[in-house]
Amino acid sequence: MATRDHSIENLIERLNRLPGVGPKTAERLAFHLLRVAADEALGLARAIELARQAVKTCSRCFQLDACDPCAICADATRDQGMLLVVEDPREVARFEDVGYRGLYHVLQGRLSQLEGIRPEDLTTGALVARVAGGAFTEVCLATNPDLEGEGTARVLAEQLAPLGVRVTRLARGLPAGSSIAQVSSSILADAIEGRRPLS
Amino acid sequence: MATRDHSIENLIERLNRLPGVGPKTAERLAFHLLRVAADEALGLARAIELARQAVKTCSRCFQLDACDPCAICADATRDQGMLLVVEDPREVARFEDVGYRGLYHVLQGRLSQLEGIRPEDLTTGALVARVAGGAFTEVCLATNPDLEGEGTARVLAEQLAPLGVRVTRLARGLPAGSSIAQVSSSILADAIEGRRPLS
Repeated sequence: MATRDHSIENLIERLNRLPGVGPKTAERLAFHLLRVAADEALGLARAIELARQAVKTCSRCFQLDACDPCAICADATRDQGMLLVVEDPREVARFEDVGYRGLYHVLQGRLSQLEGIRPEDLTTGALVARVAGGAFTEVCLATNPDLEGEGTARVLAEQLAPLGVRVTRLARGLPAGSSIAQVSSSILADAIEGRRPLS
Repeated sequence: MATRDHSIENLIERLNRLPGVGPKTAERLAFHLLRVAADEALGLARAIELARQAVKTCSRCFQLDACDPCAICADATRDQGMLLVVEDPREVARFEDVGYRGLYHVLQGRLSQLEGIRPEDLTTGALVARVAGGAFTEVCLATNPDLEGEGTARVLAEQLAPLGVRVTRLARGLPAGSSIAQVSSSILADAIEGRRPLS
């Protein structure tokens, strides 16, 4: 495209590098950013710059926050004996929304033979060291309920076993609001296997 | 989300304003931009800023370029008697790719009763004035082959009729590489109606 300005091509190319953004979407987003009010487009640019300046990785739990240790790790009113291990920093917000009040450890991914992700590519070493410190009474492995999440939880459980801490896993079963007639057989199998006494 | 830094929330909110980017995608993109190398994230911010600085709207044809008049309008080797009227500046690149060598006029949209877009919201006034100048021998209305594109072409054709210029429309018919057994009946109807003598 000799006739299209290189700054437009550069913007399209940069947008195209974002996950899930193909060449056509990148072109659409670029022309949107060129058409809207300048404040709107430059506001996004500034938001990227400010977030990159402000946000650090917490050296204790590896989530992203403006301070290190992060606001959650620094909050002495939280349950210091409970550790929830998640794959992704985005998942922290989900658990906060439902009122979890213990601490976190962000793995920054999950083990995957297919993608060649090994324990040393995650923050597993730091997790074991943290738990070995002896402050936690329970470590809940909140990796996702799929093949790789389960595999990651199993490997972590083996590494944590010698430390004598109580290791748990999030419950699997029927999703709230679902219909037994329509859930998959693996969900139903989980629900039967994990059945609990009515208290 | 009291525990998530406001700069992260601001970035998510800004990304969420992009067309086709919902809250979940915005969150995914934000955390991607926070996780990648700083150069990568800041490169996108810089690309937005540079493109907004560099790119202007051509006062003749209303496409986006670094100069005004744009490189195409300023190119005296192009066919000065041929004008192609398109809806969107992105479409200019498509026609350039297939070797079109005349001039353009970008409507910046199309007429739509549903969305309340009237002729005065587009660059139709400037189009009529340009054509009234008398330089063009042909004006091809290259709006899209759908309801609103056809409607826009009809309104423009009426406005251009008194000027005595030859007004054409892009051919409709079978898409190259398609299978007659599988194309829709409206495509096939176009193909029959628009049939041409074998030369």
